[in-house]
Amino acid sequence: MSRPLLQLALDHTDLAAAQRDVALLKDHVDIVEAGTILCLSEGLHAVRALRAQCPEKTIVADWKVADAGETLARQALEAGANWMTIICAAPLATIEKGHAVAAARGGEIQIELFGNWTFDDARDWYNTGVRQAIYHRGRDAQASGQQWGEADLARMKALSDIGLELSVTGGITPADLPLFKEINVKAFIAGRALSGAANPQQVAEEFHARIRDIWGA
Amino acid sequence: MSRPLLQLALDHTDLAAAQRDVALLKDHVDIVEAGTILCLSEGLHAVRALRAQCPEKTIVADWKVADAGETLARQALEAGANWMTIICAAPLATIEKGHAVAAARGGEIQIELFGNWTFDDARDWYNTGVRQAIYHRGRDAQASGQQWGEADLARMKALSDIGLELSVTGGITPADLPLFKEINVKAFIAGRALSGAANPQQVAEEFHARIRDIWGA
Repeated sequence: MSRPLLQLALDHTDLAAAQRDVALLKDHVDIVEAGTILCLSEGLHAVRALRAQCPEKTIVADWKVADAGETLARQALEAGANWMTIICAAPLATIEKGHAVAAARGGEIQIELFGNWTFDDARDWYNTGVRQAIYHRGRDAQASGQQWGEADLARMKALSDIGLELSVTGGITPADLPLFKEINVKAFIAGRALSGAANPQQVAEEFHARIRDIWGA
Repeated sequence: MSRPLLQLALDHTDLAAAQRDVALLKDHVDIVEAGTILCLSEGLHAVRALRAQCPEKTIVADWKVADAGETLARQALEAGANWMTIICAAPLATIEKGHAVAAARGGEIQIELFGNWTFDDARDWYNTGVRQAIYHRGRDAQASGQQWGEADLARMKALSDIGLELSVTGGITPADLPLFKEINVKAFIAGRALSGAANPQQVAEEFHARIRDIWGA
């Protein structure tokens, strides 16, 4: 099992504020995510600006695409993203087309898991060539008190067994990481846990230290 | 049953091109939609520009929101949208929060139906106060040959019976409208059928003429 990466999610409404956090944190994270709120606020310019600011990082366009997979994957990758998210509710044709466009450019699609989906869906995604999914405790679900539970962990394990690498998100702090020690985690995604911290770099280093403790150096 | 409206979907990657179509068509449609592709390309600026160009029209921010319903509804409505779409896969908390913010500002939420959803979900949406949903034959599903069928029409009828007004989209032309004569349709949404036509205004008038034939003047 490879060591999980650390992904900074930028859910700012304002690009300048996002870029200030990137300047602080880019040497302390592995992946930088242009979040949905930022992209709907600032458009493709946000992805381009993050690519310019972080020439060497993996950049995710967290667009949660539901349709027009081909057009949007082309837009995202041409703007500088490496990975683009597609929502699980999207038709399989959207996932196939998005994957084909992304893969042809050396990029990847991540399926964002929200609401109703099945393991048969997950096998269909895998069969299109997609290898990543994002397991989510939504911001609103989280605010309404939903916790990580055994059912989440069992579903994550089943997705891993299908062959999907999982990124995990939703209010995760370094103290939560041991919960996921049996899961093949691609990345832990943290937004306000990092950018909202009094000392963001220190929190990032705590994530890395816990990751090394659990998954090895 | 009230007469369905006509909605122009702008799925351009470029705002200037979208605005040229709006200039041609704004007096021939009831609703102008800032499509997902346009919004991801141009950001909130697209919604603001359409509001400035169409001060009197209903404007939809077709964001297919999956999370952060409160923040995004505020952003959409403050930029000038009347309606915002939320994807059916979103947690109910996202729909509740989005609806509360939109309703407080005289706006509405539309639930965008893609993938797996249930009539129990639809009743939950209705119980949050949401009164609109969008029944979709996705662009990619459509390109892969999926047609409107009896199963679609039966599901639309059941959604109407729950109390949701439906907007219908996915490659609709004036010739398709009789298919929907038993459905309580809020709006027919047309993108390329209008903006890709040799004479967009004439096609818009054909939509209105067929709507009047079927649903009355």
